Amino acid sequence: MKILVAPDSFKGSLTAQEASSSIEAGVRSVFSRAQVEVVSCPMADGGEGSLSIVAAHWGVAPRQLSTEDPLGRPHEASWALSPDGREAVIELAEASGLPLVRDLSPQVLDASTRGTGIIIAEALRQGAQSITLCLGGSATVDGGIGILGALGVRFLDASGSELEPLPRNLERISSIDSSQILADALSAEWILLVDVTNPLTGPMGAAEVFGPQKGASKEDVKQLDNGLAHLAHVLSEATGRDVRNNPGSGAAGGVPAGLCAVFDASLVSGAQRLGELIGLPQLVREADAIYTGEGKVDQQSGNGKVVSHIAALAAELADPPPVICFAGKVGCSAAELREIGITAAFSIANGSQAIDDLMAEAATGLQDVAANVTQLLGTRELGG
Amino acid sequence: MKILVAPDSFKGSLTAQEASSSIEAGVRSVFSRAQVEVVSCPMADGGEGSLSIVAAHWGVAPRQLSTEDPLGRPHEASWALSPDGREAVIELAEASGLPLVRDLSPQVLDASTRGTGIIIAEALRQGAQSITLCLGGSATVDGGIGILGALGVRFLDASGSELEPLPRNLERISSIDSSQILADALSAEWILLVDVTNPLTGPMGAAEVFGPQKGASKEDVKQLDNGLAHLAHVLSEATGRDVRNNPGSGAAGGVPAGLCAVFDASLVSGAQRLGELIGLPQLVREADAIYTGEGKVDQQSGNGKVVSHIAALAAELADPPPVICFAGKVGCSAAELREIGITAAFSIANGSQAIDDLMAEAATGLQDVAANVTQLLGTRELGG
Repeated sequence: MKILVAPDSFKGSLTAQEASSSIEAGVRSVFSRAQVEVVSCPMADGGEGSLSIVAAHWGVAPRQLSTEDPLGRPHEASWALSPDGREAVIELAEASGLPLVRDLSPQVLDASTRGTGIIIAEALRQGAQSITLCLGGSATVDGGIGILGALGVRFLDASGSELEPLPRNLERISSIDSSQILADALSAEWILLVDVTNPLTGPMGAAEVFGPQKGASKEDVKQLDNGLAHLAHVLSEATGRDVRNNPGSGAAGGVPAGLCAVFDASLVSGAQRLGELIGLPQLVREADAIYTGEGKVDQQSGNGKVVSHIAALAAELADPPPVICFAGKVGCSAAELREIGITAAFSIANGSQAIDDLMAEAATGLQDVAANVTQLLGTRELGG
Repeated sequence: MKILVAPDSFKGSLTAQEASSSIEAGVRSVFSRAQVEVVSCPMADGGEGSLSIVAAHWGVAPRQLSTEDPLGRPHEASWALSPDGREAVIELAEASGLPLVRDLSPQVLDASTRGTGIIIAEALRQGAQSITLCLGGSATVDGGIGILGALGVRFLDASGSELEPLPRNLERISSIDSSQILADALSAEWILLVDVTNPLTGPMGAAEVFGPQKGASKEDVKQLDNGLAHLAHVLSEATGRDVRNNPGSGAAGGVPAGLCAVFDASLVSGAQRLGELIGLPQLVREADAIYTGEGKVDQQSGNGKVVSHIAALAAELADPPPVICFAGKVGCSAAELREIGITAAFSIANGSQAIDDLMAEAATGLQDVAANVTQLLGTRELGG
């Protein structure tokens, strides 16, 4: 019997690697290596932790680069390059994430993704031909002009003067100058990992929905929304691509809008792309049973999250293996789980537990419930 | 596929019947009657609820009898007679239980099992040839002299005067007169269901260990312990049976000591006897999977409780079916569960829940986790 162990992180308590180790320990408390093969494949959905998971799969250490935080202060950030030097994985949150500016009062009109652009430029310089950019956790609402600026795009006002690529200048951009853009950026494959489907502007847009959590006041939101709309118009005039209403354009403060207008970029589900990068589809095909998990499984789990992606991969097979999901909270019925392809889900709670205790004891709780499921599955399979 | 559903009650939240219904609803949310046969067999361990479970199995309504409570006040109690009229099941707690005297200050020296004896006498009069007496929940520490008195045994002091069969008189009993004892009581089969192994007297005895929770003061405990020792001595002289150190003699305030000395009574595990009465061993043999459960499963569950009894029945089979246990609290590891023959145990908690919420939502929690386990088991069995 071969069990694939591919959990997401349990946010606030276990990384995906820790969750994977707990589940494997649970299996091993029941069956030896001779009886059951365990293939561990910690997963992520394109959010926090994605970089380290791909780097671990590649067997490389994340690279360090001196770049800038959202407010232009010096900052060390990590990124990863595949062993063959062709694929780069970059997390937007590494240089442009909200935690980096928590020490200051909100300055969202001055917060830029330029630090991420500097990493991308370095990756291209090192030979990367494919840029996988994990969006999520951003501090910025700049429509991606920070990244574009770092890659050589110049933003000009009505008088032809160059503008700093900052959100406060969005409305003043009159034209763009792409003559100095990095050629490698134009020829590269761009894969943007998004976990929301919001459009760029309007009541469901980047400024209205996500601006306030980045510190935008009501007035800021209005200025940013107008600015993003204006940017989309200018980019559309310059490139012929109108990305304003594309689902997902409103992710990460509008980064996909800027990048999709200028580059040949595609928006992809994070779990799907991460899975491709680490060979998950093949592992799913080879598994007799799949153990996955996340902090909370509910009907939202059907939207491109790790457990539903794995369930969907399994469901494509002629003889699908059971997909068992472990979670801090199981927030939907067995029938609802089945609809998203999950055979069974079990909480790691072993009774009445306060949330702090449940999180503090997550490793042993997860190990125990994995052991119980394994005993149940294994009784029949192995006659044990 | 045939699933046997045989839970104990979840004390404080679900009767065994309710637990069984929730589990069955969980199975039915996954598989139709055509796909899976469910055999419901609510269980008990000889404690509270045993009477109603056996009566339901027999298809009889419990009978009502006007008898006495522990302090001699009029009291209506239930008992059950098998359809063939040969077997009676009587719960000591019905007429001699602690809740019946909660309205008064403790009077343990005057609390008697006579009310239970009156029920037994009625059962014998109706033709019962086998008395199954569920001990547990008693308010009394009378060594069973109340029951014996109701069946015709007379207790005499040194001068030959009859004593009221009350705990305060235990030390004054000098001899017993069995000449007027009910003949049917002597010829009947007596099966006493105990869930403790305490001896009659001493530091682990009926008075020391259980006296205080029945309202006995330090002085009362001493008097009762001496009284029980004295009774055992007198009974041993009269009948030749010394039951003082038999494990279980200290159950229910020493009832087994009195009954085993006078009658041919045997002490049996409650779960085992209840299982026999309702045909559990055969159902276990016929099951492809067994779902059981109780409020809390832990290493104590190995001591004659329902789940461990069922696990032991399953373990005797050549090809044991998996035994899955549902519980409010799973208090031991998968390895410890395996030692008592439980394949897997799952809490009904679906995440962090306060104990009050967990108990209030026990029915749906149990249904959900049973549905998940059924989906997991059924995927392979039924190719579903």
